[in-house]
Amino acid sequence: MNPVTGAPRVGLVGGGQLARMTAAPAAALGVDLRLLATDRGESAAQVIPDVVFGSHTDLAALTALAEGCSVITFDHEHVPPAHLRALETAGIGVQPSSAALVHAQDKITMREAIEAAGLPTPAWRHDFTVDDLRGVGDALGWPLVLKVSRGGYDGRGVWVVEDEARARTVMESTELVHGAAWLAEELVPFTRELAAQVARSPSGQAVAYPVVRTVQVDGMCSEVVAPCPDLPEAKALEAQQIALRVAEALGVTGMLAVELFDAPQGLLINELAMRPHNSGHWTIDGAVTSQFENHLRAVLDLPLGDPRSTAQWSVMVNVVGPRDIEGLPPLTDAFRHVMARDPGVHVHLYGKSLRPGRKLGHVTVVSDDLADALTRAHHAADYLMGVINE
Amino acid sequence: MNPVTGAPRVGLVGGGQLARMTAAPAAALGVDLRLLATDRGESAAQVIPDVVFGSHTDLAALTALAEGCSVITFDHEHVPPAHLRALETAGIGVQPSSAALVHAQDKITMREAIEAAGLPTPAWRHDFTVDDLRGVGDALGWPLVLKVSRGGYDGRGVWVVEDEARARTVMESTELVHGAAWLAEELVPFTRELAAQVARSPSGQAVAYPVVRTVQVDGMCSEVVAPCPDLPEAKALEAQQIALRVAEALGVTGMLAVELFDAPQGLLINELAMRPHNSGHWTIDGAVTSQFENHLRAVLDLPLGDPRSTAQWSVMVNVVGPRDIEGLPPLTDAFRHVMARDPGVHVHLYGKSLRPGRKLGHVTVVSDDLADALTRAHHAADYLMGVINE
Repeated sequence: MNPVTGAPRVGLVGGGQLARMTAAPAAALGVDLRLLATDRGESAAQVIPDVVFGSHTDLAALTALAEGCSVITFDHEHVPPAHLRALETAGIGVQPSSAALVHAQDKITMREAIEAAGLPTPAWRHDFTVDDLRGVGDALGWPLVLKVSRGGYDGRGVWVVEDEARARTVMESTELVHGAAWLAEELVPFTRELAAQVARSPSGQAVAYPVVRTVQVDGMCSEVVAPCPDLPEAKALEAQQIALRVAEALGVTGMLAVELFDAPQGLLINELAMRPHNSGHWTIDGAVTSQFENHLRAVLDLPLGDPRSTAQWSVMVNVVGPRDIEGLPPLTDAFRHVMARDPGVHVHLYGKSLRPGRKLGHVTVVSDDLADALTRAHHAADYLMGVINE
Repeated sequence: MNPVTGAPRVGLVGGGQLARMTAAPAAALGVDLRLLATDRGESAAQVIPDVVFGSHTDLAALTALAEGCSVITFDHEHVPPAHLRALETAGIGVQPSSAALVHAQDKITMREAIEAAGLPTPAWRHDFTVDDLRGVGDALGWPLVLKVSRGGYDGRGVWVVEDEARARTVMESTELVHGAAWLAEELVPFTRELAAQVARSPSGQAVAYPVVRTVQVDGMCSEVVAPCPDLPEAKALEAQQIALRVAEALGVTGMLAVELFDAPQGLLINELAMRPHNSGHWTIDGAVTSQFENHLRAVLDLPLGDPRSTAQWSVMVNVVGPRDIEGLPPLTDAFRHVMARDPGVHVHLYGKSLRPGRKLGHVTVVSDDLADALTRAHHAADYLMGVINE
């Protein structure tokens, strides 16, 4: 509790950009944030005063975080499940619960639950060894997708493999850690990737955001268009209903992102995230209530905010550290150009040092003209990434 | 400078809600904020990690704030002018400058500068004593407005007096402090009050926000409608041009709010503020670029953001501590009702304890229907103030 106002306090595990972007709606709502982060230089720890310094793998640190908090929640999925259950046993409010979160932590558990709920998923196999690869390939076809069940993110832990020999090499050269196991999925011939986000509160209220189109580069979210262009209304509704059914079936609280393949055989669930997600960053500037505010409202079991768009189109493009960072000026020096060229672009930086392949920020353009929004957002992001220098 | 990203650092004097609401755009832009506040419980100090604890009347504290900052700026006008000049002499970037800020600190200096610039002002007198009151009344008419030149805000330091006897009582019972003097102004028979906000950067770029209608209760801003309903385009343009001319004539940098009377004799300048202002809180939810972001961009001499509205109407209503606060639940307990009734209302709380007459927060509703926006914003604010309990 905030000692001045009596407002609730939320404990937030993880010092990344998702936690950083939660600071603004928390301040607006008068909700106190307490952060678990490793040091003051982390993205979120730069902008949130109340920080418990420690690791999300340390139960003592998690317990210290929870002290005086109404609830704890997460900006990533990497807290060990046993720790989450220990916190729950100690009477600490954990949202989403350990029972829900395990589906975002373990892709095998997720696929099993999705299938059990009758929700559409690519064909998949698990519980196999390198010696079973031929049979797996016979069932799913080549190329197929190999994944480790735990610990991957932003394209890590995922391989598209052409044939049995390549699959064998990946499996033999990869050390499985954190209790991870192998799974294989058919390579879905999708026409595009969608994401459907919902917020759901412990008392069961849920709201669905507009379905967006996502573009991934090297397994990392690169561009989001909200809403997805040329998506038939029935399919948009189907995607929202899939996300709502996932949220209910898995007992999700807070934000849920369901990444979907839009394929000839229909919509298929690719991945889940139970937290604010890159596919929803556009909501800060383009929706009535941002995903970060609704995540807070949901985990506090407050009534949820209006998820609708405020304009016809929002385009979000990630700012990622380029391959060659030698000789680049500090990212913020590019401000002058980007802001002078386009007074309407929304720049979001995460306070991170420049590293190749690292998500450093994103830009959003809100417009009634999709082509205009795409051009402007990509120009701003490219310039901030040092890709163009005009 | 931020040691991780090389981003600029801004020193912010004053721990109130204006500083608190600056935290969000600073984090988005990757700009570091360092705050001068008296304690961690202050509104802004709750949400900004880097705080120098001290008083804005202490030059040593101001100097400590400025260390490592690209520029210092303000959430109020109360820093002694001599201290500002001392900082400037020491080579510290002060935006707005002491030479500009004195016009927001001293109403006599402001009126003189406004008149010298040929800008419209109510008839006024200064440099008088109680013995001169008859002549002042003959010149300006009764009732008239008595003001102290320095230190007033939110209606404090301003009296509407009916006659000479009442004026004498006010003057004789009020102690002038901080070098303040008396001034008297005609009571303008205005039909409504307007506010025109502009942002101006040191290099001279300026942008003008839509002109808004403000309603004051007991001298405190209560309601803002953006844009002002039924305002002829020529008059809106005139108000914007007055604000731009004030900014240029007085050398203002950062946000400038010009409060105007819309009177039969035309637009007349009432008050100025050289910082984000209550009349611009709607811009957080209703404009492309908020006043808080543009204040930061302006004082850092970055290109300014688009000030236009994102929807047809925005209505902001302040949440003020009611006269009788006994038995009221904590403000945040009213969340459930307000959010459940209206998923689209934007709630902004300042992290302050409940006191009668204190600005505790505000709500904003953005809508294409003005009547709808007014009803919803007032309901939410009234409920948060404990005025209604349905």
